[in-house]
Amino acid sequence: MSLNESAKRLCDQAVARAAEWNIGVATLENGGRLLDFGLAARGGLAAGACLAEICLAGKGSVALAAPNHDLWPGPTVLVQTDQPLAACMASQYAGWQISLDDYFAMGSGPMRAARGREKLFDAIGGLETAPHVVGVLETAKPPTAAVFEYIGKETKASAAGVTLCIAPTSSLAGSLQIVARSIETSLHKMHELGFDITCVESGFGTAPLPPVAADDMQAIGRTNDAVLYGGEVTLWLRAEDDALSDLVKKIPSSASRDFGQPFADIFKHYAYDFYKIDPLLFSPAVVNLMNLATGRTHRFGELQPAVLEKSFLG
Amino acid sequence: MSLNESAKRLCDQAVARAAEWNIGVATLENGGRLLDFGLAARGGLAAGACLAEICLAGKGSVALAAPNHDLWPGPTVLVQTDQPLAACMASQYAGWQISLDDYFAMGSGPMRAARGREKLFDAIGGLETAPHVVGVLETAKPPTAAVFEYIGKETKASAAGVTLCIAPTSSLAGSLQIVARSIETSLHKMHELGFDITCVESGFGTAPLPPVAADDMQAIGRTNDAVLYGGEVTLWLRAEDDALSDLVKKIPSSASRDFGQPFADIFKHYAYDFYKIDPLLFSPAVVNLMNLATGRTHRFGELQPAVLEKSFLG
Amino acid sequence: MSLNESAKRLCDQAVARAAEWNIGVATLENGGRLLDFGLAARGGLAAGACLAEICLAGKGSVALAAPNHDLWPGPTVLVQTDQPLAACMASQYAGWQISLDDYFAMGSGPMRAARGREKLFDAIGGLETAPHVVGVLETAKPPTAAVFEYIGKETKASAAGVTLCIAPTSSLAGSLQIVARSIETSLHKMHELGFDITCVESGFGTAPLPPVAADDMQAIGRTNDAVLYGGEVTLWLRAEDDALSDLVKKIPSSASRDFGQPFADIFKHYAYDFYKIDPLLFSPAVVNLMNLATGRTHRFGELQPAVLEKSFLG
Repeated sequence: MSLNESAKRLCDQAVARAAEWNIGVATLENGGRLLDFGLAARGGLAAGACLAEICLAGKGSVALAAPNHDLWPGPTVLVQTDQPLAACMASQYAGWQISLDDYFAMGSGPMRAARGREKLFDAIGGLETAPHVVGVLETAKPPTAAVFEYIGKETKASAAGVTLCIAPTSSLAGSLQIVARSIETSLHKMHELGFDITCVESGFGTAPLPPVAADDMQAIGRTNDAVLYGGEVTLWLRAEDDALSDLVKKIPSSASRDFGQPFADIFKHYAYDFYKIDPLLFSPAVVNLMNLATGRTHRFGELQPAVLEKSFLG
Repeated sequence: MSLNESAKRLCDQAVARAAEWNIGVATLENGGRLLDFGLAARGGLAAGACLAEICLAGKGSVALAAPNHDLWPGPTVLVQTDQPLAACMASQYAGWQISLDDYFAMGSGPMRAARGREKLFDAIGGLETAPHVVGVLETAKPPTAAVFEYIGKETKASAAGVTLCIAPTSSLAGSLQIVARSIETSLHKMHELGFDITCVESGFGTAPLPPVAADDMQAIGRTNDAVLYGGEVTLWLRAEDDALSDLVKKIPSSASRDFGQPFADIFKHYAYDFYKIDPLLFSPAVVNLMNLATGRTHRFGELQPAVLEKSFLG
Repeated sequence: MSLNESAKRLCDQAVARAAEWNIGVATLENGGRLLDFGLAARGGLAAGACLAEICLAGKGSVALAAPNHDLWPGPTVLVQTDQPLAACMASQYAGWQISLDDYFAMGSGPMRAARGREKLFDAIGGLETAPHVVGVLETAKPPTAAVFEYIGKETKASAAGVTLCIAPTSSLAGSLQIVARSIETSLHKMHELGFDITCVESGFGTAPLPPVAADDMQAIGRTNDAVLYGGEVTLWLRAEDDALSDLVKKIPSSASRDFGQPFADIFKHYAYDFYKIDPLLFSPAVVNLMNLATGRTHRFGELQPAVLEKSFLG
């Protein structure tokens, strides 16, 4: 099953359970389908886990677990996949900045694999054609009919063949689906560091669910911090141990010059210029690389409960 | 789907897996259906999780997780819902004291919403009519045909339209379904404190599964203690922070004058007169209120492993 | 549903999700079906959980949970069953040493209950006839057509009525399915100690997933150590407390004369003669016996993170 087919199946399940999971469902005049996981609709924990699995195109699973009390007393978000490139890179990564007239949103989901314009796909493959595409927008503004048409054109599906799932960062589902990106951030950083991530076979990640913020700016801070200072990722891969022992020290967020303060403070420090932030900041606090070729474990980083407390209670 | 429809669907699934989950299934002459999760039938962990979800009318989920070793070395019971009022108040709360001739049992489950006589429903809504109603009885005595007829009459379903699920407190399934009431006790206490709980959107709770006691009296003690001294609940809601910072200190069991000893000792202290126990004792050890309106967290209470040890090993 | 039927259903599901879970599917000329969870196929975490549930003949469940950081920073394997004898003894226990010409593999799964030659079945019952049998082979060599014919003959199914699931110990799925044997090892040891295990009603076990080793010898060491030094099992049963308080001290691995070193070192110490190792070594580090007849808990053993670190990082 293609990524978009598999994600569409999850969207259809979300529609079937819309009342129970507090998901809004609307069809636009041009046939585009809009699923609201936390904007006008209330959403919640189940909506958030569902949205996170749609981001992964169904090629991974997401669940809530008991708190790690040494870290933060709220629930833990677990994510697991045996298709890490397809799930996290070809689908979950928010690599499509959708900008149309005055509409802007970060776009993730398997519609990216049907569009195929991002350079990332040269490294990971996974392009596909699909009669029906699925995208996830992290946004506080519902997409217009024109956005559906634009996405339909870009992905070679019609507007009627587009399902868009939305949730603002400052919603329960919106926060949960971001915190479910612990594996994704580690893979993306490894890719940025020049490592060939096609050798990664499976991944398992945890991060604490932060208190939902009242506004999107604070929510972006807290959800980033959940991964940067509370995220722990285990990857199973095949590579040279020498390369991995060197690499592992560079992956956790602690390897970044900007590490150590809540994201909101870092952002403020750079006068809210996102592009001044070290792009290598975005990765989990702890990374375990399990080398399937040799049986050796490469571990680096440390969970930072003090920074989480500052961020989540600030 | 109504609460009773959704619970009936879970009962039908329990019947389909009765052999695997050790659930007894019987149909009375008047057509009433009796599901036994732990009285003559053996029941178990899966039966208990299923029974707990029936209590929640399928509007929440229950699972076992690894022990929190700082608290108690047995499994943890997780409960999660995005319909807290419907799941925990209109259904799970044991608000119907069924008393007929010499039969007595605490009744929970969505049959309460079809009966609708409890004052609680004025505050939370959720009344419904249903051709088939589902109830859960915490009892060591199987309900008679007359009990089915009585419940059928009270809920405007016939006896043949009643499914009753039973388990004694001193059974594995019976214990598990009580420990899955961590969210419910917090909501009920907030309601008793005069707080409008309709603003609560989602909940997540944990509590340790105690050793199943040999008799129901000890079992009532241990299952209460699991929540009172080992329960931790996170609620997402929208309210004024001032009200919440005041409220949160009153919710955990530690706010009660009777806090501090195993429930069995408290009960004995009051010469086994249940109505002398502080009704405000019944709530989790720790409560986290996450204010969706402001992003602030209000946390109060502390887990009490020493009291649990006294209760569970006593 | 018989054990073999229930396991066959899980195999059919594995085939349906083979692409997603990286499972290889092949049909031999004699009609035998071979499912590869980690030899030529890549397998992974989901494949491993599925394989572990096939071992349990679907009469128990297996899932990954967050790490117990006091023990080991990788994921925890949870296993749970309310049919412990059927799931763990009649099916999961690797009691059939399949030896045919130059082919050798430890065989587990419900095909053992259809063969019924092991003495163990006298104690636990559960023999069955089945038109289609399912077996699991821990092996790095795919079984030949002759192996299918042999198993078909031994179980009174034809070769075409045999599904064999394989994974080497040194694969992710292969390691996971072994670590999911925490309950099984405790039951088997109780049986070896002369205790009548038919009184055990439910079980819950945890153990850390070790780093997959590069070769099967090291993998056998690590997966054994995961249970011996990191496994914790809770059993609910009915027995005399005096017998249990005596028994519980003998169950954990610490009761063995060989306890204390990584399995690989013990094996080396005995010059790689498996039969010189104390057979009573094989059991979890910690055992909780919950007596349903009296409400008393009998606990013994201690988790051994230092030995795990030596084993997993050595």
